[in-house]
Amino acid sequence: MDRDKCLRLDQNCALTHTRDRFALPEEVLYFDGNSLGALPKTTTTDVTKAIEQEWGEGLIKSWLDADWFFLSAEAGDAIAPLIGASAGEVTVSDSTSINIFKLAAALLRQNDGRSKVITERGNFPTDAYILEGIIDLLDKDHELHLAEPEHIMDSIDDQTALVLLTHTNYRTGAMHDMAGITAKCNSQNVPVIWDLCHSAGAVPLALNEWGVDYAVGCTYKFLNSGPGAPAFSYVSQAAIKNFKPVVTGWFSHRNQFGFEDGYQASDSINKCLVGSPQILSLRGVLNGIKSFDNVSMLDLRDKSVALAELFIELADEKLAKFGLELASPRETAQRGSQVSFNHPAAYAICKTLIDRNVIPDFREPNILRFGITPLYMRYVDVWDVVEIIGNIMADSAWQKFTSDVKEAVT
Amino acid sequence: MDRDKCLRLDQNCALTHTRDRFALPEEVLYFDGNSLGALPKTTTTDVTKAIEQEWGEGLIKSWLDADWFFLSAEAGDAIAPLIGASAGEVTVSDSTSINIFKLAAALLRQNDGRSKVITERGNFPTDAYILEGIIDLLDKDHELHLAEPEHIMDSIDDQTALVLLTHTNYRTGAMHDMAGITAKCNSQNVPVIWDLCHSAGAVPLALNEWGVDYAVGCTYKFLNSGPGAPAFSYVSQAAIKNFKPVVTGWFSHRNQFGFEDGYQASDSINKCLVGSPQILSLRGVLNGIKSFDNVSMLDLRDKSVALAELFIELADEKLAKFGLELASPRETAQRGSQVSFNHPAAYAICKTLIDRNVIPDFREPNILRFGITPLYMRYVDVWDVVEIIGNIMADSAWQKFTSDVKEAVT
Repeated sequence: MDRDKCLRLDQNCALTHTRDRFALPEEVLYFDGNSLGALPKTTTTDVTKAIEQEWGEGLIKSWLDADWFFLSAEAGDAIAPLIGASAGEVTVSDSTSINIFKLAAALLRQNDGRSKVITERGNFPTDAYILEGIIDLLDKDHELHLAEPEHIMDSIDDQTALVLLTHTNYRTGAMHDMAGITAKCNSQNVPVIWDLCHSAGAVPLALNEWGVDYAVGCTYKFLNSGPGAPAFSYVSQAAIKNFKPVVTGWFSHRNQFGFEDGYQASDSINKCLVGSPQILSLRGVLNGIKSFDNVSMLDLRDKSVALAELFIELADEKLAKFGLELASPRETAQRGSQVSFNHPAAYAICKTLIDRNVIPDFREPNILRFGITPLYMRYVDVWDVVEIIGNIMADSAWQKFTSDVKEAVT
Repeated sequence: MDRDKCLRLDQNCALTHTRDRFALPEEVLYFDGNSLGALPKTTTTDVTKAIEQEWGEGLIKSWLDADWFFLSAEAGDAIAPLIGASAGEVTVSDSTSINIFKLAAALLRQNDGRSKVITERGNFPTDAYILEGIIDLLDKDHELHLAEPEHIMDSIDDQTALVLLTHTNYRTGAMHDMAGITAKCNSQNVPVIWDLCHSAGAVPLALNEWGVDYAVGCTYKFLNSGPGAPAFSYVSQAAIKNFKPVVTGWFSHRNQFGFEDGYQASDSINKCLVGSPQILSLRGVLNGIKSFDNVSMLDLRDKSVALAELFIELADEKLAKFGLELASPRETAQRGSQVSFNHPAAYAICKTLIDRNVIPDFREPNILRFGITPLYMRYVDVWDVVEIIGNIMADSAWQKFTSDVKEAVT
């Protein structure tokens, strides 16, 4: 492999054309699209239209005339095919944390005296925090059980009230077996909520096929929807009828504009709505999802794997000698769309890369994380980033610094 | 009074210059700024900057470089002086409904065995719906008590667990005595949450002076922040220390980026945050509040009262004979910033006005509602709207239609 071969791979790749859908600064190598996706070129124009024409000119009438009332459902239906869900099973509103609260509180409220609430030790913190808050709020006999990843399957039993798992780990990119864990949960009548923050738009998902009833996920990472863009909730057609919302705002009412005394839940996925959706941010979601138009998730996965394996191969060859240890699974099928490394000086390496216009991410305690975003990432970007890291690490001052750090922490 | 006198009042008014801060369609008479405020001229440019420069160019770095992490607090501090609160007591995130849930669920969780949960019969529906959901979720002995407005004060007693009131009624504009009710609640150790959706930016408020500990409110009405813009939460400096959040997302953690196991609440108003704020919509809030720059809330109230009383005087003279009955309090001090009328054909009148580029609002069952927004509303607009309604109602076909409607409903 050499740089010219990377350039040729870029020319012949099935997703070469999709990079042009994004407004990326030319001088930056962006490896943090799993934290904040890049800006689709259509977003500015569309949000400006929402502001100037729909809000400024149309004023209140735009709730109907510009379909603002239906944007949560429209965005949900657009996400559905990317995660293997059906129309009417997904809606977009609020944050991932709040959506976890909505689903988890409702499911624990409905549970039948089981006590164990399982999540993964090392899950993204907000997931466990939200569960802690619900358990305290409900004041029943629920207990939070933080399972090591390899013990999750075994810990699910007939005393389990709820399982909440993030499909792809935010630090390492390790993926759970969603189909297998869901099958076990379903066989024990245990509700399981999948957090798809690092999976939606990143890896092929088949929620319907795998029997998944509940999921949430983020739109501002791989779905390119903009900073803090609203999150999605998924409840399967099979589960929606018996799902009883607990955050019972007017957008989930059966007859929202009847202004009736007394709450009556909608029959539909609107059960997962609460108050007015934030229209400007929601328009970002519609444009973010458009960046996947006519993209096969299988092609996307193929390129994601190829980019990640190129990264790992080059890192083995050129960076392992400087102490960068792969923190992601080597096994393709167990890895989402990121490549992470452990290094005692990970934070300093991250800062130095950012100074040189390479943007990865740092996660406590010592993870250097590179998101792989095949819609706009090139093979040559992977080649270049490994070269740049190698040059930094080979610098004698850096070698002294990192060996000092290593001594200090060991 | 005549139209020329209205034009002169507009020329000599203390708030004449603020209309120019808004991008209003010239041909429209907009009387629904209490549902969706008008577009400030600075908003498009600022949101475009957030999209193209901060997101597009700055990418993930903008969470710090463009202060995205601090926008909720920045917007809260900007709202504080408009509602008589202090810096650090207000934050902006999520919807009003969700903010009611956060405060009400936390306060009911902390309560000491009292059962009565009081709100107003005829309050905006989501407020009561959210309370119903919390009561069901907590599964204690709480009971929702819908009090008639005139009985609220008397119904507060030492068995009251929580009071949730909207300060200004969305249908009639009738205002509660916030100082008096809060004083009674405080004397009985009853927590009271004020919903300021129809008051913030509409009438002078003095939360600190009145001893208010908890409030929420909307930014997309009188605060001109855009469709579905995020809502604010207020917890007083005195109450924040003992406030224990129940929707415990990572943005409310004491050490958000420590990614620690175990939830530890922040000490600050960040207790009211949950997940990532929706940045594009939040930028709308900052621009909405800028439309109040150098505006005294007392001047604004003076003009609001003058516009409303002109409306009422002209309606008495020219519209009462067609059956439009004032639904708002005649007493100035009891009326917020809107004028509402009852009419059996209110819905049809509303639709006809919209066809003629006059935009009021209709609320069930028969309320025609006119928001008074002194930052951009002119005396001549009030004159014209009464003329237009009078012309519609004087039309012989309309007279026959409304007398038929009246017969049908009586």
